[in-house]
Amino acid sequence: MKSWIEYSTDNDFSIYNIPFGIAKTESGFAVVTRIGDEVIFLNTLTNAGLIDCDKPNVFTSEFLNDFIKLGKAKTSAIRVKIQQLFSIENASNKSAILTTGAVIHFADVVLSMPVKVGDYTDFYSSMDHAINIGKMLRDPNNALLPNWKHLPVGYHGRSSSIVISGTDVIRPIGQTKPADAEFPVFGPSKLLDFELEVAFITGQGKPMGQRITTAEANEYIFGMVLFNDWSARDVQGWEYVPLGPFLAKNFASSISPWVVTMEALAPFATSGPVQEPEVLPYLKYEGNHHYDINLEVAIQTANGVEKTVTNSNYKFMYWNMVQQLAHHTVNGCNINAGDMMASGTISGPSPDSFGSMMEITWRGSQPLTMPDGTERKFINDGDTVVMRGAGIKGDIRVGFGEVIGKVLPAQL
Amino acid sequence: MKSWIEYSTDNDFSIYNIPFGIAKTESGFAVVTRIGDEVIFLNTLTNAGLIDCDKPNVFTSEFLNDFIKLGKAKTSAIRVKIQQLFSIENASNKSAILTTGAVIHFADVVLSMPVKVGDYTDFYSSMDHAINIGKMLRDPNNALLPNWKHLPVGYHGRSSSIVISGTDVIRPIGQTKPADAEFPVFGPSKLLDFELEVAFITGQGKPMGQRITTAEANEYIFGMVLFNDWSARDVQGWEYVPLGPFLAKNFASSISPWVVTMEALAPFATSGPVQEPEVLPYLKYEGNHHYDINLEVAIQTANGVEKTVTNSNYKFMYWNMVQQLAHHTVNGCNINAGDMMASGTISGPSPDSFGSMMEITWRGSQPLTMPDGTERKFINDGDTVVMRGAGIKGDIRVGFGEVIGKVLPAQL
Repeated sequence: MKSWIEYSTDNDFSIYNIPFGIAKTESGFAVVTRIGDEVIFLNTLTNAGLIDCDKPNVFTSEFLNDFIKLGKAKTSAIRVKIQQLFSIENASNKSAILTTGAVIHFADVVLSMPVKVGDYTDFYSSMDHAINIGKMLRDPNNALLPNWKHLPVGYHGRSSSIVISGTDVIRPIGQTKPADAEFPVFGPSKLLDFELEVAFITGQGKPMGQRITTAEANEYIFGMVLFNDWSARDVQGWEYVPLGPFLAKNFASSISPWVVTMEALAPFATSGPVQEPEVLPYLKYEGNHHYDINLEVAIQTANGVEKTVTNSNYKFMYWNMVQQLAHHTVNGCNINAGDMMASGTISGPSPDSFGSMMEITWRGSQPLTMPDGTERKFINDGDTVVMRGAGIKGDIRVGFGEVIGKVLPAQL
Repeated sequence: MKSWIEYSTDNDFSIYNIPFGIAKTESGFAVVTRIGDEVIFLNTLTNAGLIDCDKPNVFTSEFLNDFIKLGKAKTSAIRVKIQQLFSIENASNKSAILTTGAVIHFADVVLSMPVKVGDYTDFYSSMDHAINIGKMLRDPNNALLPNWKHLPVGYHGRSSSIVISGTDVIRPIGQTKPADAEFPVFGPSKLLDFELEVAFITGQGKPMGQRITTAEANEYIFGMVLFNDWSARDVQGWEYVPLGPFLAKNFASSISPWVVTMEALAPFATSGPVQEPEVLPYLKYEGNHHYDINLEVAIQTANGVEKTVTNSNYKFMYWNMVQQLAHHTVNGCNINAGDMMASGTISGPSPDSFGSMMEITWRGSQPLTMPDGTERKFINDGDTVVMRGAGIKGDIRVGFGEVIGKVLPAQL
């Protein structure tokens, strides 16, 4: 499949992708997609009669939530229609489409938060990550807690501080307790870290009291974004017992601006690991629900040098999305369109695929050397963390673009 | 202060109260208050020219969030204006006011969720509760964890499943692990509990990266509701390490329909406990920020008998609201109008003031006998849990009414 919009083979936004996002314009907001380096305004296509939608107001909403609520049948049909309009077979309509003004170069478009996140859940579903953390913080010989292989451990996080790529992140301040101190101390976090994650965004779920099974779950998952779950390790270590992480996480989480649909990711579906011991029946699933998506993290220093610090892959997950959603709702918890559920840090089996500085530098004991000769145990003020992700299969490339965030000094 | 609306001295909705809520009507939603047994429609008063508001649309919103966003100066002035309109000194205007149709008996009004909860945080700020739980689940001689007296421990919970009083609660299903079993089992929770809490609702906070100090915090707190943080103790015991409670809590939380303002609660402000060891400077505060509010929980059985199972008080808190909000934002976490922050279970020092069945029956070892002779270790199917709360000082009574929820059997 080719588009009459030209792009290079390493462009994440091939015509196979057709992600959805929100642009901020002088007159408000607009639902947009992207092919190559061009952003496409769906409201303009609709006004020109090129896309049919019985609720065209959704295309000028501030968030994708109302678009998502149209349901997969409609959003999927709109995506296919866009692929048709912009396919090379339809090149004869190029000038007619361009005349509408629906196509604007990405550099001239300001993107905005794609969804209004209702509730945000963070899972902990990469086994290599859980083992690494368990080895460092608990028992090296018994790194996984007893429940880990029986259920996808998860917890609720803060929605209000999820921000779009490009938003600066201020180093958080808080309480920490040095190992040798009698009392906690107060000040900027010294162990600021990224966590390489992806997050899925739900469609409208079932009412309270009803569960979504693993067989149904895909119907309730709209698409995915890259997710940097910024973490203050020293704050977390002191605050997290017994009720979990709080201020160590809720100062900011960054997401990529384009929501890549599950339809676009389908070519990269792959099988997951054998789960042993056997999981309870409500967590069993059929089909391939893991995804072969390359993920990488780079650190750019304040003086402009960049180093890729890890290459991981979403296929390394132990628990997959349909299991996560089935677990989340097995107690009757209701799910809304626009809820966000993140994977937890995605680490592979080898150190060059670990998903956080905590693991990459093994708690700071093995610092990284940057191209400019400086060392990194965690993230420094002035550093920009860049995450990238894409699935590649034959000539099909579907990517997320980037999620970036620059760390600013603490404000005392 | 007296109203020309008559009510008995034990009515929670005296003219000193003037809480805010949302009524669902045939034509949509309306902001309402209540005096005695009469519900008062603010949009009708506004249309009749009896209340001034430069944004009258807020009175027909589905939720109070837009009203709260007017800011305390305006919402407080509106509350005072209502007190004037309905005071006995203004009895001469009674028929003019009644003619507007703004006053409707409570039995003829359907109340709806008062706020759209953006983010929900649950604290753990009653020391007696934390000690009781620590004694039962951890070390009886070292019941408080090391961080507990240094920071108000809190965690994020689920917003979507916070429901208004009167909503039935379906017993959750999930994984539990019997102590003697090798593997977890699946089925309805056997240890369903209430947690007696109150929650405060925030006004519009500061942007990300800025903190709210203890001195400023009161300006960002709009009002309070009763909060039943339903908990499945057996689910929680298995799932909660290391990231905190999840499915044990997020199936439902119930709130009372009337938001009682901080202005109405001011007469009940009282001093808190001496905090020893001394807290860090950002958690120090001046003035009285604890509140003497009587709280009680009753269980009504399916056959209609009721037993009061605890009498607690909000003044038993160790950490107060201004400390909680200062802690929540010390890392730069942003707060929105309509966020909800619950106290955590409020237990007093004696067993008849414990705030959960877990504590009252000491993990089921000391069952309660109900008036019909049946025993309760936790909550049975068909039971209705009723929480009530009110401050009383001289002839001033300001109460919350009730939050009730009936437990329905699990749906397998």
